[in-house]
Amino acid sequence: MTATPNAARDRYAELLDAADEVALKLRATAAERDRANQSPRAEVELLRERDLLQVQEPVSYGGAGLNYAQACQLTRRIARGDTSIAHLLGYHYAQTRIDRLFGTPEQAEAQSRANGTRRLFWGGVQNPRGGSGIELTRDGDGFRLDGHRTFASGASLGDQLSVIASYGDKLVFTSIPGGREGFRSVGKWDNMGQRLTDSGGVEFTGVRVDRSEILGPDPVGEYEFTPYQTLVTPHWQLAFVNFYVGTAEGAIAEALSWTRSNATPWETSGVDRATDDPYILERTGEIVSDIRAAALLADRAGDALQAALDTGPSLTAEQRADAAVAIYEAKVFTTKVCLDAASRLFEIQGARATTAAYGFDRHWRNLRTHTVHDPVAYKAREVADWALNRRAPEFSLYR
Amino acid sequence: MTATPNAARDRYAELLDAADEVALKLRATAAERDRANQSPRAEVELLRERDLLQVQEPVSYGGAGLNYAQACQLTRRIARGDTSIAHLLGYHYAQTRIDRLFGTPEQAEAQSRANGTRRLFWGGVQNPRGGSGIELTRDGDGFRLDGHRTFASGASLGDQLSVIASYGDKLVFTSIPGGREGFRSVGKWDNMGQRLTDSGGVEFTGVRVDRSEILGPDPVGEYEFTPYQTLVTPHWQLAFVNFYVGTAEGAIAEALSWTRSNATPWETSGVDRATDDPYILERTGEIVSDIRAAALLADRAGDALQAALDTGPSLTAEQRADAAVAIYEAKVFTTKVCLDAASRLFEIQGARATTAAYGFDRHWRNLRTHTVHDPVAYKAREVADWALNRRAPEFSLYR
Amino acid sequence: MTATPNAARDRYAELLDAADEVALKLRATAAERDRANQSPRAEVELLRERDLLQVQEPVSYGGAGLNYAQACQLTRRIARGDTSIAHLLGYHYAQTRIDRLFGTPEQAEAQSRANGTRRLFWGGVQNPRGGSGIELTRDGDGFRLDGHRTFASGASLGDQLSVIASYGDKLVFTSIPGGREGFRSVGKWDNMGQRLTDSGGVEFTGVRVDRSEILGPDPVGEYEFTPYQTLVTPHWQLAFVNFYVGTAEGAIAEALSWTRSNATPWETSGVDRATDDPYILERTGEIVSDIRAAALLADRAGDALQAALDTGPSLTAEQRADAAVAIYEAKVFTTKVCLDAASRLFEIQGARATTAAYGFDRHWRNLRTHTVHDPVAYKAREVADWALNRRAPEFSLYR
Amino acid sequence: MTATPNAARDRYAELLDAADEVALKLRATAAERDRANQSPRAEVELLRERDLLQVQEPVSYGGAGLNYAQACQLTRRIARGDTSIAHLLGYHYAQTRIDRLFGTPEQAEAQSRANGTRRLFWGGVQNPRGGSGIELTRDGDGFRLDGHRTFASGASLGDQLSVIASYGDKLVFTSIPGGREGFRSVGKWDNMGQRLTDSGGVEFTGVRVDRSEILGPDPVGEYEFTPYQTLVTPHWQLAFVNFYVGTAEGAIAEALSWTRSNATPWETSGVDRATDDPYILERTGEIVSDIRAAALLADRAGDALQAALDTGPSLTAEQRADAAVAIYEAKVFTTKVCLDAASRLFEIQGARATTAAYGFDRHWRNLRTHTVHDPVAYKAREVADWALNRRAPEFSLYR
Repeated sequence: MTATPNAARDRYAELLDAADEVALKLRATAAERDRANQSPRAEVELLRERDLLQVQEPVSYGGAGLNYAQACQLTRRIARGDTSIAHLLGYHYAQTRIDRLFGTPEQAEAQSRANGTRRLFWGGVQNPRGGSGIELTRDGDGFRLDGHRTFASGASLGDQLSVIASYGDKLVFTSIPGGREGFRSVGKWDNMGQRLTDSGGVEFTGVRVDRSEILGPDPVGEYEFTPYQTLVTPHWQLAFVNFYVGTAEGAIAEALSWTRSNATPWETSGVDRATDDPYILERTGEIVSDIRAAALLADRAGDALQAALDTGPSLTAEQRADAAVAIYEAKVFTTKVCLDAASRLFEIQGARATTAAYGFDRHWRNLRTHTVHDPVAYKAREVADWALNRRAPEFSLYR
Repeated sequence: MTATPNAARDRYAELLDAADEVALKLRATAAERDRANQSPRAEVELLRERDLLQVQEPVSYGGAGLNYAQACQLTRRIARGDTSIAHLLGYHYAQTRIDRLFGTPEQAEAQSRANGTRRLFWGGVQNPRGGSGIELTRDGDGFRLDGHRTFASGASLGDQLSVIASYGDKLVFTSIPGGREGFRSVGKWDNMGQRLTDSGGVEFTGVRVDRSEILGPDPVGEYEFTPYQTLVTPHWQLAFVNFYVGTAEGAIAEALSWTRSNATPWETSGVDRATDDPYILERTGEIVSDIRAAALLADRAGDALQAALDTGPSLTAEQRADAAVAIYEAKVFTTKVCLDAASRLFEIQGARATTAAYGFDRHWRNLRTHTVHDPVAYKAREVADWALNRRAPEFSLYR
Repeated sequence: MTATPNAARDRYAELLDAADEVALKLRATAAERDRANQSPRAEVELLRERDLLQVQEPVSYGGAGLNYAQACQLTRRIARGDTSIAHLLGYHYAQTRIDRLFGTPEQAEAQSRANGTRRLFWGGVQNPRGGSGIELTRDGDGFRLDGHRTFASGASLGDQLSVIASYGDKLVFTSIPGGREGFRSVGKWDNMGQRLTDSGGVEFTGVRVDRSEILGPDPVGEYEFTPYQTLVTPHWQLAFVNFYVGTAEGAIAEALSWTRSNATPWETSGVDRATDDPYILERTGEIVSDIRAAALLADRAGDALQAALDTGPSLTAEQRADAAVAIYEAKVFTTKVCLDAASRLFEIQGARATTAAYGFDRHWRNLRTHTVHDPVAYKAREVADWALNRRAPEFSLYR
Repeated sequence: MTATPNAARDRYAELLDAADEVALKLRATAAERDRANQSPRAEVELLRERDLLQVQEPVSYGGAGLNYAQACQLTRRIARGDTSIAHLLGYHYAQTRIDRLFGTPEQAEAQSRANGTRRLFWGGVQNPRGGSGIELTRDGDGFRLDGHRTFASGASLGDQLSVIASYGDKLVFTSIPGGREGFRSVGKWDNMGQRLTDSGGVEFTGVRVDRSEILGPDPVGEYEFTPYQTLVTPHWQLAFVNFYVGTAEGAIAEALSWTRSNATPWETSGVDRATDDPYILERTGEIVSDIRAAALLADRAGDALQAALDTGPSLTAEQRADAAVAIYEAKVFTTKVCLDAASRLFEIQGARATTAAYGFDRHWRNLRTHTVHDPVAYKAREVADWALNRRAPEFSLYR
């Protein structure tokens, strides 16, 4: 059922290579697609073709048996070419783990088989902050979803949707096929960044949900989430961290390559080539070092979440806090460093790099757009509350 | 010939108000026009209608008799609404001073009259760095211009053009009407920022230039520029500083206004209104203080250049250095602070402010684009060379 | 009674020169005196000898008739040589204004005469935050002070003391001679910075206070402070801003001078003199520009407070807020910039500048110590509350 | 001869614990010893007693068989308690590797035995930049050393000294016992930071050196250093990185502990405990995240150097560059982050933490002093030269 360690390692290496290839391909057209602002159908198909969607499912179902930390490395690689598509993939990898956390073994198993064999792409409709706009209510022998939500990444494209809804004063996790009757996209996603993430609003009007599509043994009964289940939020946050890092890595690689070919020395620099300019070198060295640190912190965050996942349902609240805070440290740091890199790269490249055709501004626009998804100051606060007060982050869909 | 002090003060106040009104008008459509990326004809006409083009000419010619430092305050005000248009206006104000620096009294006088009475809009074709791409040569009883140049702001729109060309190994300053035969725009200006500055390339093919259109008593003879004449470069740099500051001032005003109306409190902030969030307040306070400092430094730079201009042709090299360095200090500082503000404003406003329709990213794009016009590290170096070594900036079209 | 404008200007210029001379003298021994950590008696005498204590009193009383903003410029100049002594002088200038704000005309007049003719040096005992530790109570026909206070700058040296005490739930401002029976210094001031500020604790045990020494017409009756009176706090904060700026100005001047004489070029710099090193020049240019901006913001803050003071008792709450916030903007900015400069100067000077004998670390220690007097994040908050919410800083002895 | 893997792991764990204990002990008296500024004899003895000096030697010689990366982790731990002593230990660990790089197998073996069995403490006298001040010349049947050197850490205390000298236009590495005739310390080390590093100057006057004390088969013959040998410089730089990181880790731990016990809430914070203050939490979260990133980058640097060392004499120039640049990335980053943390900790702790008795300023003083050992801008440049130009750092004793 599982691959041998060597085969697994080989498969992981192949997927990393596949992600690199996809990233290069995406990068070549990223600026153009960014301007066109179309639904990223072709891009999702590209991920599907390269078997990048079902990597976390077992080999026997057509997957590669990667763990979540490994999947996040793929997200990072894709981000080197296109932050929007990495965003979609990162969320997808996280959504497909929700069955494991909240579903019954049977639900998880069935979904895993479907993900693997059918190479499903998942969209998500998470609860907005401050209480859901989407309500689950009983309806005949089943249930129905009603309400709407802004910022539902990949929801209009998803073969399968993870929908988090309110049921009375509780959160319930449901998993339904995309395009079910009563579900529709509303408004076009047109933002300054992450333009290809298909993150427009969605509306549910009496969307049918079967009991079996609500995750868990008695999801609408009395229960409390376990620390293990609340790892759901760190999954998303780890995805963010990885596509921030990948974006910065791709941006600096692209900038240095451009600089080697195109940059011209400044008239008073006293050097013959821009690549010998003392200030260009200084900035480059600073940014390269910063991004390296960001990548390491993201790796550590992945290891921390994976260790918590590997611990399984017995995970303690303290262990959950350790894992979550490792990710939030990475969030605080990568936000600062990657955004700064995306802006300062122009000081390496110079004025000619501002031509719209290159689209080099998309890196800053992508990062600036997503890094305000949830305010980073509160992540710093959560890190400190744990370091200073041993006060664990209280679970919400943002922490 | 000149207005009384009181009348002059009143006229200046009126023009500041006019600039504020134009800025508000421009701001209302800035995002939309930024996307449309059209030639800014209508915007230039708006400046003309409000008598904002000829402000530096004497009242008797239809101007307002403002000095250059005052004109730069108008540039700053316009930048609060639209950085591109402020850029055009700032360059225009600088170009129209070139006659004063390099022309004979007769040339300056004739041009002043034309500027005032005909409300001419000036474009410019400055020499590229590292030697001109535009050559002036003798041709029959006159001269001709040949060559090309990228980044010629306002050149295709200008009623009059300031063209800086090489004549052998010397720089000469010419002033010719726009649209003369043999002159054409090449390529469309399509950059990530400053999109409405009409800064595409231009080409000269045997463009006729009369002797009288070459500034100076014997411009093609033997001479060296005086310190006073080399103030030409600080004119442009002061314009930059002012549209950086104005952009930041406009961006923060716009962001705070938007925040009051639209921002929502973060779920764990414990406050009812976003405007009470401790981190939003902290960032706001920091940015407001930074921008205030930038404005004061820009004011000081304006005073310094004006004092040098008021000294006139007897200006010493040391006095020129003092004025130039005051502006370069402002350049170093405003670049850092204004760019940083434009990026951090989103941390005040939050995720919803990233909607493309608002176009709030244009501030960062505009500033990022123009602040690499010439590398700010070299401006820091010039500041230090004066502070540490009493080595004055050597004149070039960038310093 | 008042000097002619010209004479006043001359006197001010003389005092600025005197401050410069004192600063140079203090700088020469600052490192040594910092290590010795003795009570700054001689330094206060130096200020007295140069007539720098009574500058705000009228000429007829031996003063120079300077306004508070001008006095703060003297504080700044002294800080170029010794931050501790500037701190003492800055507080002194503020304390001597308290009579004007809270006293009757007779009290103010009498004190002014004493300050001028006797060249009194003032110490201060301000209320600690969160309610006073010093209580004023009735005692026979007069009053008594009891309690203690940490951080009472100059209190043990003061000829006269400004003591702010609680009287029931109110604050009262008293002015008593130094050394009165029952008053004593407790503990030695030994801090990492501002070592010569004589800021140890003080204790009051039944210290006699006459009715006439309590400022105001009926200071222990029913009343509320007017906006004009609450300008007392901005006085201190403006003093802080000025000695931060002066410290940074002095530190950079000292560092550049040292660098010219002592710094050696780095082995891979490719230059013959450290002063030609591209990175040393870059840092110098950045720091010089930052400090210039800080000075301008401090000037603006001084103008704002002075304008409010010149308005007098009719000052509105809105005008008070404008003045206070101008100072708090300067506080936010100068804190950041001056502290940063004090730390980065070593990157200009290099390793040899770390020799203890130079004492160049005192600049960072002095600024770091005083800039946590009250947390600067709350000043940023107050700036923003005014900019964003038109919510004025609520009066306390910190805002 | 070598321990079993398990025993080795246990011994490493024991040594980490020992280092932690020593660090706590040193921290308790660090402020006091910093003021006293005495020669760190007792501290070196403490390291010796705990068997922390010979950790890199084989078990059979009384060592623990740690590799250099592991030794650097001990340096980091000690730095949490005392940066000066970590500096001495870090240099010591580096000096004792010089025999391995430059000596014959016999020389290395003999020295290893002596280091292990006699628990020798090493001082070092490295060449100053720009050519040695210390010359080795032939003298009878042997050699002699003459010259002087500033900043010779641990040289006056060393049982054994690593002395790098010039021999004609070549560098030679010698190893001689401490205190040999003709060697003397000159001047007292009294710097603003790293006060206990015994880094004063030394003078050699006709100090006898035997042929066997010059490392290598024919050290004074014709040869070029191999890439493997030039790893000598990264050894020192890795030590620096580790004691920077350890200092920051110790400083934040100390600051948070102090804050929990001593800090008081700000009057307008609206919270009851300083540890609930939103700004204190924000700064804490930022600093904790930064330091975590610094530690990871230092770990990576250690792994990179160790991998190069494990490769052995066949190391290529490219591999040497990879290892060196990994360390220089860490140098660039840790310098910025650790220095910043050391300064900002006071914003967490507040004004009372500035009391001299706590000595919390020593962290900034220590880091500021050592981080100008060699200018970090040039390290950024070397990082960039490799990233951008594939130009490897040219070997010197600084890179």
